[in-house]
Amino acid sequence: MASSSSVVSSSSSSSSDKGSGRILQFDPFQSLVDEGFWHRLSSLKLDSLGLDQSPIPLTGFYAPCSHPKVSNRLTLLAESLPSDFKELQFSLERAHGNRNRCPVPGTLYNMNTFESFKALDRDSLLKKEAKKILDDIHSGKVEEDSAVLSRFFIISFADLKKWNFLHWLAFPALVVGPPAVVLNLQPAREVFNQGEAQSLSAALNEWRNSSLTTGVLYFLVSIASNSCATIRQLKDWKACQDDGQKDGKIQFLCYREKRGFADMGLSLVGEAVISPSKDCRDPQCVPKAVGWEPKPKSINLAESMNPERLAVSAADLNLKLMRWRTLPSLDLGTLSSVRCLLLGAGTLGCQVARMLMAWGVRKITLLDSGLVAMSNPVRQSLYTLDDCLDGGSLKAVAAARTLKRIFPAVEAEGVTLSIPMPGHPVPTNEVARVLEDCERLRDLIASHDVTFLLTDTRESRWLPTLLCASENKIAITAALGFDSYLVMRHGAGPLSVSDQTNSLSTVDGNGGQRLGCYFCGDVVAPIDSTSNRTLDQQCTVTRPGLAPIASALAVELLVGLLHHPNGIYAPGEIANSIMSSSEQPFGILPHQIRGLLPQYSQVTLIGHASNSCTACSTTVVSELRRRGTEFILQAIDHPTYLEDLTGLTELIESANSFKLDWDDETDDADDI
Amino acid sequence: MASSSSVVSSSSSSSSDKGSGRILQFDPFQSLVDEGFWHRLSSLKLDSLGLDQSPIPLTGFYAPCSHPKVSNRLTLLAESLPSDFKELQFSLERAHGNRNRCPVPGTLYNMNTFESFKALDRDSLLKKEAKKILDDIHSGKVEEDSAVLSRFFIISFADLKKWNFLHWLAFPALVVGPPAVVLNLQPAREVFNQGEAQSLSAALNEWRNSSLTTGVLYFLVSIASNSCATIRQLKDWKACQDDGQKDGKIQFLCYREKRGFADMGLSLVGEAVISPSKDCRDPQCVPKAVGWEPKPKSINLAESMNPERLAVSAADLNLKLMRWRTLPSLDLGTLSSVRCLLLGAGTLGCQVARMLMAWGVRKITLLDSGLVAMSNPVRQSLYTLDDCLDGGSLKAVAAARTLKRIFPAVEAEGVTLSIPMPGHPVPTNEVARVLEDCERLRDLIASHDVTFLLTDTRESRWLPTLLCASENKIAITAALGFDSYLVMRHGAGPLSVSDQTNSLSTVDGNGGQRLGCYFCGDVVAPIDSTSNRTLDQQCTVTRPGLAPIASALAVELLVGLLHHPNGIYAPGEIANSIMSSSEQPFGILPHQIRGLLPQYSQVTLIGHASNSCTACSTTVVSELRRRGTEFILQAIDHPTYLEDLTGLTELIESANSFKLDWDDETDDADDI
Repeated sequence: MASSSSVVSSSSSSSSDKGSGRILQFDPFQSLVDEGFWHRLSSLKLDSLGLDQSPIPLTGFYAPCSHPKVSNRLTLLAESLPSDFKELQFSLERAHGNRNRCPVPGTLYNMNTFESFKALDRDSLLKKEAKKILDDIHSGKVEEDSAVLSRFFIISFADLKKWNFLHWLAFPALVVGPPAVVLNLQPAREVFNQGEAQSLSAALNEWRNSSLTTGVLYFLVSIASNSCATIRQLKDWKACQDDGQKDGKIQFLCYREKRGFADMGLSLVGEAVISPSKDCRDPQCVPKAVGWEPKPKSINLAESMNPERLAVSAADLNLKLMRWRTLPSLDLGTLSSVRCLLLGAGTLGCQVARMLMAWGVRKITLLDSGLVAMSNPVRQSLYTLDDCLDGGSLKAVAAARTLKRIFPAVEAEGVTLSIPMPGHPVPTNEVARVLEDCERLRDLIASHDVTFLLTDTRESRWLPTLLCASENKIAITAALGFDSYLVMRHGAGPLSVSDQTNSLSTVDGNGGQRLGCYFCGDVVAPIDSTSNRTLDQQCTVTRPGLAPIASALAVELLVGLLHHPNGIYAPGEIANSIMSSSEQPFGILPHQIRGLLPQYSQVTLIGHASNSCTACSTTVVSELRRRGTEFILQAIDHPTYLEDLTGLTELIESANSFKLDWDDETDDADDI
Repeated sequence: MASSSSVVSSSSSSSSDKGSGRILQFDPFQSLVDEGFWHRLSSLKLDSLGLDQSPIPLTGFYAPCSHPKVSNRLTLLAESLPSDFKELQFSLERAHGNRNRCPVPGTLYNMNTFESFKALDRDSLLKKEAKKILDDIHSGKVEEDSAVLSRFFIISFADLKKWNFLHWLAFPALVVGPPAVVLNLQPAREVFNQGEAQSLSAALNEWRNSSLTTGVLYFLVSIASNSCATIRQLKDWKACQDDGQKDGKIQFLCYREKRGFADMGLSLVGEAVISPSKDCRDPQCVPKAVGWEPKPKSINLAESMNPERLAVSAADLNLKLMRWRTLPSLDLGTLSSVRCLLLGAGTLGCQVARMLMAWGVRKITLLDSGLVAMSNPVRQSLYTLDDCLDGGSLKAVAAARTLKRIFPAVEAEGVTLSIPMPGHPVPTNEVARVLEDCERLRDLIASHDVTFLLTDTRESRWLPTLLCASENKIAITAALGFDSYLVMRHGAGPLSVSDQTNSLSTVDGNGGQRLGCYFCGDVVAPIDSTSNRTLDQQCTVTRPGLAPIASALAVELLVGLLHHPNGIYAPGEIANSIMSSSEQPFGILPHQIRGLLPQYSQVTLIGHASNSCTACSTTVVSELRRRGTEFILQAIDHPTYLEDLTGLTELIESANSFKLDWDDETDDADDI
């Protein structure tokens, strides 16, 4: 493929010694792997590949070097990798058109463990990759896409936990026997006359400036007798062929540029004798090959990443790892965008916020009206003693601050607000403030996707329950007794399907019976339960283990709900029952979970919505919509109003006439 | 009770106007309540009284004032209250002998709620207390103990959560009708001649310097015609009686001191006319009385307490409140003195430490060999981003530091140490270090009462399990699968009852079957499970809710165990079984608790100790005792050695000959 008047050019620099009689060797690329490459590999591994160890197609980039004695650099950038799984499916369409990014195809063998990285048979791999080059030569593919001649590959192990990337590159080169011998090698300027050099420079510059050919750095050069130089693709080799080939001599041009222009002083022209053995003409032959870089390299990105970004990546790590094997359907996008409102930043609120962050929830608003008290830090996991000094920080604010200290990328906000409560009548001079609080609470519930009810009194849960029912928002309650807990998701709102009549108020959007809320089982309206309580009743004395358990279950329940196709309308399921959908990756989706610590037992229950419920029945939701805050004020000032409205009064009277002991029935629920 | 030559003295200052013709009134005490009084009341309430609202006997203290126009101060100190419940049972023996602390009996009515404080009928109370004075006069008790004339009482509400003490004092004074009229009132010096004054001073000083009489400030003074003054107890009133009484005139001395000596200039002598109505002579009469201080007072101690002390009190508050109603048998002394060693300061370790603190455990040692990684804070509740910077803090150290930030009085220590593990052979140059680690671990386990096994590999639990079995120490394991958890307490050590033969090694100290350890169900020795694991296996990917649940259960299990009379020998109990001791205030004491999050289910199990166990059988414990660290090294380097030693090898071979699928049986346990 060479003649006296045409040379094969390669920008892979050849042995650059001027002298003749030496063996012709190609200098390998110098590899340079950008950090962006490893960042994208991390994402690809975590988000798309999981445990898949299939080879990954790569594109390396290089440009003609401007120094005659320095190897060209092959650079790997983020763009060297497919950006997602879709792109992975198809072989990479290598971008052309950037003169400084001439593409080279490569392959990444990324192993799942350090041990399998070490165990790779590097010699076989190198032969396999070299064989591809030989195959491409035999098949003629090199004529269409000469870049495959520079094929490279990498073996790696990405320790994503520590942001450490162990890798080893190879640039496979075929070893031909006997070796080619360099007859001479000198700067192009010394080989060509001035006219030839000028014409060649012009032709080369034109080649490199055309977006179609700029990335093609294997080409044929022919110089006519009138000193006119022509550059051609390899596939046009027949046009350049002459008789000079027969003696096995080839001429080659080592092309170099300086400041973007062909440089006849840096570019070298050489002549060599090759006499390829017959083996190489046999398509089945396994060629000898060299090309491993001298040793593996290791790069740690943790040092160069900013802490916040590292924290974000690291926090996602555990979650993304879940999808590899155990929970492929985990929807991290939903979790990171769901907006959660936590009513109460006490024992439950702190732990629920932590659990949400651990699940990848990133938008958390905490609402509380209190200050951090000295007794809080040992039980409320977002506070330390510092938060108690000088009278104590506002709880909601301190909790949000700590969430950011744990994970700076969380969008945490603290809202200081008292939840208006039935049975806590409002003095005239505070009516305006209370009405404002009602409005703010309604706006907060409306602007969040999920509301957690985590306060420590029964009556403070009433208004949020009602507002969630009216707005048809997910509401999750966690409540503690002394040694028992209740975690439940409220059913959908009674008016959530607007084209149904009120008589269907206990029927959910799918026609099933609507699930109940926290108040559905009660026969009395919530009243003031804090006044006239002794200290142990005020402090909601509970066994310390309860709050973390209930909080964890509340968040697991939400995560299950968010992954259920029916969302808020999902029917309640019971453990080990025929209703349970064992195919769900998160398991069953219960309505209520009740636990009893003295028995170390836990049961799942279903309770349907009650038509007389003081917080979620059609009657009260309709009344709220009709009369707004005026209705709320009346309910707050006169709790019996709710009982009258919902028909509970009548129910109790008829029950009393049978001397049923209703009190005992409700005591349990009251405690929790 | 007065004559021309004798006066009744009272250090309660009388109307001090010199002029005559005015109504005689006694100035009430000025009350001064020391903070120590409220501190002791807090302790008494939390530790002894609980919900008991019975009146509490008090002792107030006063001394004659050194200013004629200022009321005496009645001071309430810590010593004014009984120091514990025992002392409460008996009426307070009022200390005499301190001239500046003349005792006065009082009563404290401390209410449990603000509402009941407000609801007290203060008028009745005052009458009731005044009646006591009248009764004491009628019964003659005043003659034996004149201090009862100055009787006082307090109503209060102690908000121990906020360290706020609302209180209202009363010094009941009988209103006699018609009122007594002052005829004259002037300094003693002007009434007595110099001889009388000198003699009176001397007698008064002697009275006040005698430890028998120093606290008795109601006394009779008689001055003989030779100017010689005599001081007598009230019971000696007959000796002082003369005819001057008949016209209803009484003479009185308002006694004052200056710098510890009777002062005839400050002391006043007066004369008044009294004509008590007949009502007062009737023992059944309910007297009119006055004496309430103008208004209630409120004192908040939080501001003056140092934060650490406040934190200690506050942290104890919730626990002490538990004892009031729900858990009277809660032994806070045991909890605060138990020494807990936590192996692993990761997701489980952090949460277990928090739970222990919440239960009042004050001695916590955390052991871990790692650094805080970026992925830790969102799941490991003792770390924030700051702990991850600059390569990460040592986990054990950072965790202990955070515990102190939460609760400064905790004795938390971090130990950085790698637990030697079977299947992780020790290179020759590290043998010395590993042996040292073994020794340190053994010393740590021996010097603690409880060891929690909270690491994330199976094999790291082997040596601690063995050492706990050998030392017969409580060991509690919490282990997580992807969506399941196991919490268990290990049984007592096999050689814990030294006078029994080895053949009884699966029998506990009470003759029951010994409970198993974490390894008892296994048929293979622990091996290296971290090498050659993919990232998701290394990171122990679990649903975030598991760790808080398992940690909470582990600590609740310990608290139950510490309250069980048989301690480490307590038999395993199962929920709702006939074995369960429902009388235990903490509920049942299970051996193992296994939970499955997809079913929201939790079961209790009992597993007995295995004779072939690689970690707690007589064979391995005996071998450890015989060969010490040499044995440990052999086990670490050659895991099959353990299988051979315990007969597992043989067992597996015979099992394989039946083609049983042992692997499936053990997979579950391995994952957890």
